[in-house]
Amino acid sequence: MALIDNLKWRYATKKMNGQVVPKEKLDYILEAARFAPSSSGLQPYRVFVISNRQILEQVREFAYNQSQITDCSHLLVWAAWDSYSPERIGNVLSKTAIERGLPANTSDDYQKMLWGLYEPLGQEWHKNHSARQAYISFGFAIAAAAEQNVDATPMEGFDTTKMDQLLGLDKLGLKSVVILPIGYRAEEGDWLQNLKKVRTEKEEFVTEIA
Amino acid sequence: MALIDNLKWRYATKKMNGQVVPKEKLDYILEAARFAPSSSGLQPYRVFVISNRQILEQVREFAYNQSQITDCSHLLVWAAWDSYSPERIGNVLSKTAIERGLPANTSDDYQKMLWGLYEPLGQEWHKNHSARQAYISFGFAIAAAAEQNVDATPMEGFDTTKMDQLLGLDKLGLKSVVILPIGYRAEEGDWLQNLKKVRTEKEEFVTEIA
Repeated sequence: MALIDNLKWRYATKKMNGQVVPKEKLDYILEAARFAPSSSGLQPYRVFVISNRQILEQVREFAYNQSQITDCSHLLVWAAWDSYSPERIGNVLSKTAIERGLPANTSDDYQKMLWGLYEPLGQEWHKNHSARQAYISFGFAIAAAAEQNVDATPMEGFDTTKMDQLLGLDKLGLKSVVILPIGYRAEEGDWLQNLKKVRTEKEEFVTEIA
Repeated sequence: MALIDNLKWRYATKKMNGQVVPKEKLDYILEAARFAPSSSGLQPYRVFVISNRQILEQVREFAYNQSQITDCSHLLVWAAWDSYSPERIGNVLSKTAIERGLPANTSDDYQKMLWGLYEPLGQEWHKNHSARQAYISFGFAIAAAAEQNVDATPMEGFDTTKMDQLLGLDKLGLKSVVILPIGYRAEEGDWLQNLKKVRTEKEEFVTEIA
């Protein structure tokens, strides 16, 4: 099916049935997330995949008790860098250069230029900027899940501080930003399943400047 | 082709050849952008599509003189709400209810709850939150372009204040956040075209908690 058909098929599933997503589909979704573009290719985020039932029960407690957290197959958690630093930027750029068969210091000037831009913007800006990049990856995962006929529910409604503690993200220099339970829709009990998907009309959404 | 193959095909095109993207492909990319999910379905962003050459020349001046701005077929600009408000939230929720054949006031309690959450967070939070939603839509457009074999270059490197002025976004209550020139790669002169696509290794990118 074409991407657009997959995007129309999907919806923010409100009730899941507990069925497990096969490993190859999970891996596919994670690969899509991994191949997302990001500013300067830094990929300033990671994905945590929780299938441990005790941990999911704990998450549900600080996620408005949403049932998909425990009825999903896997819960994907995007966690973004809590700040940029010359080391973090340098590590990615030098690894990229090496992978391309170039000297590790190929991008040293670029790194300096980038850090020169980022440093004065401050940590709050850093956090928001890295989180924005994570949302592109998050979007790719949503699209990939739909292509695999796997249901998914984009969610921001959880206590990020408690998630950071639970996953030990602070010591990794990460902050949780957004989560995606994946699994399969329940036959019954999902209030949204049979409601029309509504979007802003094209005429209002798009402005052409020709 | 599967989504993942399209994502591997694409790259941040550095030089475009000026060829025009057919209207049906442009429309397809915009439909993918429009069908992206967003927090509470508010879609707190719009997309501006610039093909006017004089305006593209002006944009290029405040976008680090990047050649794709003027060598692209169309420049897509995502502009997010500058703040949430009870009216903005209410308008979307009541339109959604009506489209679903429900009374317009169906979501009044939800609107109050949501505004009760958003109001104390302040305008800076609002702007960042609406921008994050825009990035999901941005991601969908990137994936859709790749599926259509249309090249695209995700870009944040432009002066958002100047873009807002040029497009008159202030009086629409919008702030530009990210742009995407779409078009076709030039045969020559693109330094990135033949370099390996590098991503963080799966083992580092993904952490499983089973």
